[in-house]
Amino acid sequence: MKSSKPIAGRYLGYREADRAAPYARFFNPELAPLAPHVCAALDRGGVPDILLPDIDQATTNLFGGEAVLEDGFVLTSDGGMRVSVRSAMPSVTPAMVDWWFGWHGDAASKYKLWHPQAHVHVGWRETPPAGASGRVLYVGQTSIVDEYIGSDLIRGAIRFVPPATLGFTDKSLDDDQQATIICAQIGLGDAPIDIGYLAHHVRAVPGGSEMRSRFWMGGRHVAGRNLIGGMAAVVAKRVLSVTESDARALLVHCAQEMPHLASFLPELFGEFKDAE
Amino acid sequence: MKSSKPIAGRYLGYREADRAAPYARFFNPELAPLAPHVCAALDRGGVPDILLPDIDQATTNLFGGEAVLEDGFVLTSDGGMRVSVRSAMPSVTPAMVDWWFGWHGDAASKYKLWHPQAHVHVGWRETPPAGASGRVLYVGQTSIVDEYIGSDLIRGAIRFVPPATLGFTDKSLDDDQQATIICAQIGLGDAPIDIGYLAHHVRAVPGGSEMRSRFWMGGRHVAGRNLIGGMAAVVAKRVLSVTESDARALLVHCAQEMPHLASFLPELFGEFKDAE
Repeated sequence: MKSSKPIAGRYLGYREADRAAPYARFFNPELAPLAPHVCAALDRGGVPDILLPDIDQATTNLFGGEAVLEDGFVLTSDGGMRVSVRSAMPSVTPAMVDWWFGWHGDAASKYKLWHPQAHVHVGWRETPPAGASGRVLYVGQTSIVDEYIGSDLIRGAIRFVPPATLGFTDKSLDDDQQATIICAQIGLGDAPIDIGYLAHHVRAVPGGSEMRSRFWMGGRHVAGRNLIGGMAAVVAKRVLSVTESDARALLVHCAQEMPHLASFLPELFGEFKDAE
Repeated sequence: MKSSKPIAGRYLGYREADRAAPYARFFNPELAPLAPHVCAALDRGGVPDILLPDIDQATTNLFGGEAVLEDGFVLTSDGGMRVSVRSAMPSVTPAMVDWWFGWHGDAASKYKLWHPQAHVHVGWRETPPAGASGRVLYVGQTSIVDEYIGSDLIRGAIRFVPPATLGFTDKSLDDDQQATIICAQIGLGDAPIDIGYLAHHVRAVPGGSEMRSRFWMGGRHVAGRNLIGGMAAVVAKRVLSVTESDARALLVHCAQEMPHLASFLPELFGEFKDAE
């Protein structure tokens, strides 16, 4: 992964202007320690690729009857990586997470709540439509994010797609009180190049929810979004070869931001779920 | 970082001759496990560079009012690294640490007490003057050390400088009962090339002291100490590009030697503080 330079006026953390936001009290600069199962995955290091299957087997991996490896990373032979991580989300419902993905995307000061030590900026590529109760319908929309993954500042384009696009048609997803799955294609923010996919499956468990995250990045998932992008992707496939540091950093990032989100989401949702 | 070959007569650990030293009973070959906050920093991996600011913001980082990241590492875009680590030092006073930095530098068997699994040799480049009560005035002096950092045997030149040289003029440093800061420029032992800086801030806390260590190494901090060194530095900037392994190894080394020092320093100080 390549680092971008920070843009003037974009910065990490809250400043005076951010503190005026009505939700500012939910900004907590401190992250909880990584969960023991995450540290175990980091200590274990890379796993056999078949334990973290590629996206074409994502349905079986997430919704099959077999126990699967829930936390880990692997560098794939085509220069890409796959990362899986679980996050406990006590007191959170799947519906709250769905609401969050629509709500946070129009203001950096909202986005920063999620990861106070990595999130720099967010904006929708095009203003999304509003649904019932003013909810933002994020599926089909693209969120442009500036965030640190480890030490690298990345400008990413997160294009949220319908779960069925990735083959997720599990019946449990029909009722968003019991489960939801957030799916996106991840691209570069500054070039018409896609670099991978993510899925966050959230299901109700006793006491709250559990999120199971999957990332399929780089390698064969690098593709151009148009003719110029296609030509650039040929180059990008060589340049964007990921390293173990990238895989570890992505795992850590997700394992930090999702429990952090869970720490304030129930209260934030209670207060802002009907607000614009 | 490049490895040096061990020199004949220089070795790791204590041998028969070392055991005759009057302080030999303080040699403990076992290190305590790394502190949980150190393991957390290693698991987390590299962080955004602005969370571990460069040396020109060291004063704000160490003495500012804001909470800062106390344990972590980052590889900088110029090929260098920054490392921060905290060490609990129960029963230690800042004055004891100051005494240690003067006392240990004239004998390998003293230096080895500090890190029994990494310290090989030490000697002053020029014999330092003695102060009151036979104390060695180490500021302004250069300690030539052979030590392993991770798997690499390094010959370093630690040139202790007045704290004001690095901009540290905090009032709390005036009274060495409450705080001290050890500052040094780090160079290669065998070539007139400087490679970075360190600062160890030690402040009294309930039950003892806390050390906050900062290292700014490589990249823009590589410089020649004379004309030949200047020419060599141009080459060194390319050759000495640091890796994540270097950053992790430096963090671990400091996180081992400082708590180990704390484990025997109060008793050693009590017995030898007035000895030559």
